[in-house]
Amino acid sequence: MKQPGKSRRRGGGRAGNAHRRAAAGIDQMPWRIPINTDRPTEPLDDAGVAAIHDGAMRVLEEIGIEFLHDEALALFREAGCKVDGTNVRMGRDWVTEMLGHAPAQFDITPRNPSRKITLGGGHILFGNVSSPPNYFDLEIGKKVSGTRAQCANLLKLTQYFNCIHFAGGYPVEAVDLHASVRHLDITYDKLTLTDKVVHAYSLGKERVEDVIEMVKIAGGLSEEDFAAKPHMYTNINSTSPLKHDDLMIDGCLRCARRGQAIIVTPFTLAGAMAPVTMAGAVTLSIAEALSAIALFQYVRPGTPCVIGTFTSNVDMKSGAPAFGTPEYMRATQMTGQMARFYGIPLRASGSCAANVPDGQAMWETSNALWSAVQSGTNIVYHAAGWLEGGLIASPEKFVMDCEVIQMIQRYMEPAITATTPGDIAVDAIKEVGPNGHYFGTAHTQERYQTAFYQPFLSDWRNFEAWEASGGTWTAERAHRVYKDILSSFETPPMDEDARAGLADFVARRKAAGGAPTDF
Amino acid sequence: MKQPGKSRRRGGGRAGNAHRRAAAGIDQMPWRIPINTDRPTEPLDDAGVAAIHDGAMRVLEEIGIEFLHDEALALFREAGCKVDGTNVRMGRDWVTEMLGHAPAQFDITPRNPSRKITLGGGHILFGNVSSPPNYFDLEIGKKVSGTRAQCANLLKLTQYFNCIHFAGGYPVEAVDLHASVRHLDITYDKLTLTDKVVHAYSLGKERVEDVIEMVKIAGGLSEEDFAAKPHMYTNINSTSPLKHDDLMIDGCLRCARRGQAIIVTPFTLAGAMAPVTMAGAVTLSIAEALSAIALFQYVRPGTPCVIGTFTSNVDMKSGAPAFGTPEYMRATQMTGQMARFYGIPLRASGSCAANVPDGQAMWETSNALWSAVQSGTNIVYHAAGWLEGGLIASPEKFVMDCEVIQMIQRYMEPAITATTPGDIAVDAIKEVGPNGHYFGTAHTQERYQTAFYQPFLSDWRNFEAWEASGGTWTAERAHRVYKDILSSFETPPMDEDARAGLADFVARRKAAGGAPTDF
Repeated sequence: MKQPGKSRRRGGGRAGNAHRRAAAGIDQMPWRIPINTDRPTEPLDDAGVAAIHDGAMRVLEEIGIEFLHDEALALFREAGCKVDGTNVRMGRDWVTEMLGHAPAQFDITPRNPSRKITLGGGHILFGNVSSPPNYFDLEIGKKVSGTRAQCANLLKLTQYFNCIHFAGGYPVEAVDLHASVRHLDITYDKLTLTDKVVHAYSLGKERVEDVIEMVKIAGGLSEEDFAAKPHMYTNINSTSPLKHDDLMIDGCLRCARRGQAIIVTPFTLAGAMAPVTMAGAVTLSIAEALSAIALFQYVRPGTPCVIGTFTSNVDMKSGAPAFGTPEYMRATQMTGQMARFYGIPLRASGSCAANVPDGQAMWETSNALWSAVQSGTNIVYHAAGWLEGGLIASPEKFVMDCEVIQMIQRYMEPAITATTPGDIAVDAIKEVGPNGHYFGTAHTQERYQTAFYQPFLSDWRNFEAWEASGGTWTAERAHRVYKDILSSFETPPMDEDARAGLADFVARRKAAGGAPTDF
Repeated sequence: MKQPGKSRRRGGGRAGNAHRRAAAGIDQMPWRIPINTDRPTEPLDDAGVAAIHDGAMRVLEEIGIEFLHDEALALFREAGCKVDGTNVRMGRDWVTEMLGHAPAQFDITPRNPSRKITLGGGHILFGNVSSPPNYFDLEIGKKVSGTRAQCANLLKLTQYFNCIHFAGGYPVEAVDLHASVRHLDITYDKLTLTDKVVHAYSLGKERVEDVIEMVKIAGGLSEEDFAAKPHMYTNINSTSPLKHDDLMIDGCLRCARRGQAIIVTPFTLAGAMAPVTMAGAVTLSIAEALSAIALFQYVRPGTPCVIGTFTSNVDMKSGAPAFGTPEYMRATQMTGQMARFYGIPLRASGSCAANVPDGQAMWETSNALWSAVQSGTNIVYHAAGWLEGGLIASPEKFVMDCEVIQMIQRYMEPAITATTPGDIAVDAIKEVGPNGHYFGTAHTQERYQTAFYQPFLSDWRNFEAWEASGGTWTAERAHRVYKDILSSFETPPMDEDARAGLADFVARRKAAGGAPTDF
């Protein structure tokens, strides 16, 4: 049995060079925000949407959500909700009134305003993998704890690929940095290695406030400038079932009060922390998300919020989470229907259970990404680089996912399906007739350079040409592309005062001890 | 750099055993014909559909199609079409009238009536890879010419997997058999190793007639029984641009006159044998398909016909065909709209350009298969086992594709998105409350065995468990599954007289010299 990649050559044989394009690494698509014009796939009829809505409202009215945050409890009490210990029950009329304040679409503007992103409507955005504690690449060949250096490399990929629209959480946890100062060093890296929208973890007031300050310094923003519109966002996960924890709500309230965006993403694994039925898991997820979004709208009407979905199923044999499954796809589509029902943008994810960047990884990720498209998702977290249910970040997987994301972006270009007389091409069909081919015709010559998607990683040559150039399997080609990109990476321009200001801020906050680590 | 699959163990370590289930090989889904309830993705508006229709009709009226078949030319002349040499121009009114005879839905019944398939409506069927001249597996490790033994192994997979609904063309060409008798031996293998619907190549009257006779013998059918309804089908490709060749039209006329089904699949590679614009390539494809279908309806109104699509693009750098691209997906969706416009079932394909069963193979194939779903395709050719643009058949790829197809089949089960009160699960959410989990609840216990898709190839364990059991990548797991299936394969039951009759027929026809090979 031939081992996959047996005839791989080290150090860039012909196949390596084939993917090298001057200093820029590869030939990629330009930055743009794709518009998804496909009619969403909607497995629920109106009665189904009403049933999930009613179920979620009954959860909020009859069962209630735990908020482990004193100020939040006081706010709910003030708003007239029924607060019993940490349990909060809220009426559907109040929830509906609050949701009415949430914008259906909003922008987030990072330090480089040309990297502004729009959430909502038909827009669909893709971001890097966030928060895996571990790292895997083909060179190391095993699962290892993440480091700052690996994180920086993945941030460079995040910046490099135009199809990646925002820098989400840490693309891998830098476990070599002490937790008290990790957010300072990594946010410094994020804000200097990328110029895209960044995220703050809601893990204690110090961390959120530090990231806010650093975003202000990086963008040269006064407090007034900053609070005038979203420049960053946070993402929180409820502690399913039925619970929002202290630190996450705290971080959200800080962001909400300063006009920053909030994504609320329950992690409802059907059969584990959520009902085994997908409609039940979606109902629980919607209830958890809306309870928090209602609070943020109460605190500051108009707070830009996003409903996140992370509803999947477990492997009933092992209890391990599964991703990119048929149930995952349908749950994402159902949540999309609910998000449109409430008029709030939707977050979903690229995801897989596979441990290495192989065939399984790509069919699971393809399923996840296509369900994001089908569901009308507006922002796709973890779209590039995720393995092992989010426990591993992989640069090869990052590069492979970017090929898929670029294809999705190209898929959304209306030019492909245009039907002008020039597109229908009866004249060209007449000109070529039954015995010719279209390579040399004027109709082809005028269009061929932009007619088709051009891959940077896929090898479309025949077997013989592919074999002669090394016979490398996709993951190994991705490894080379990753190395090529790193070797030619150029940090985005940045105002030197801003960079010095960031370094100074980090030094001062480190000297002061960083953030508490008793969470 | 670690080589993919470095720690693979030969001969079935623990990971191999994990996929072994008694004599049956694996735990797979039961035979059923999935119903696609998703609303199709439709990139064209009504004006776009009208533009392609008008374009196709103008091609038929103003340019014409070449039919390199004397009897067909005489029939067109008789029908009032304008025949000039081999060029046939036909008016849109006549074409529309002929298409009105084509059924929107029909069945094909093989020798085992419980394997009957339905084409049309919401039904979606999947078939094995057909016609690659070459074979690749991980044991051989290189591309080799196909053999009868390899073909038989792939036929066993075709029979084994319940998600494969029909046995299309030869899953690999048996190049070790002389072309004069290959159809006899391989059709014998198909009809004895499988009990699913089979196909006849339209490669000369002798081959078609031989397959028809063998299908009759296998099913114990009289000529009257046989001609009473479809028991088999043929698939032809036009010689794009604008041409139907002699042997293919001959085979179709033989099938049409005896009530058998016909799939007409132009192979319109945009930028090569078709316009570089996708709408133009679809227009040409539709014109070519409809010209033949109109003829078959004229010959025998009601002939069961299918519009096939094989519109993709070429790599403009190398001229090599590409598959599963964004342009391919949109062309498939557009052709789906046209097929519904004409009220005729649609064929599409699983396909990829990748040379080995790796990540690229699976994202290209996923794109192709999901576009089949999105387009409302009724019959998916080459759905399992295809590599290198159809030049290679691979058993590992076959097994990998079947996992994806099973997920698509599961995706179409309405139970996933049911919203009865039991599905919404408010009572279970109340019972578990904020501090529990759902594993042990009655709600879960009553449903968990059928709640989620159960994979046979995907490894959902965490990295450590996966590594401890050998750390095998997907293609290598697929190789073991393939070997397991072969080792326990049981041929489907068959009437002994029918089997003896087939063997006798093959012997007699071989003694008579088989079929001419001067095509």
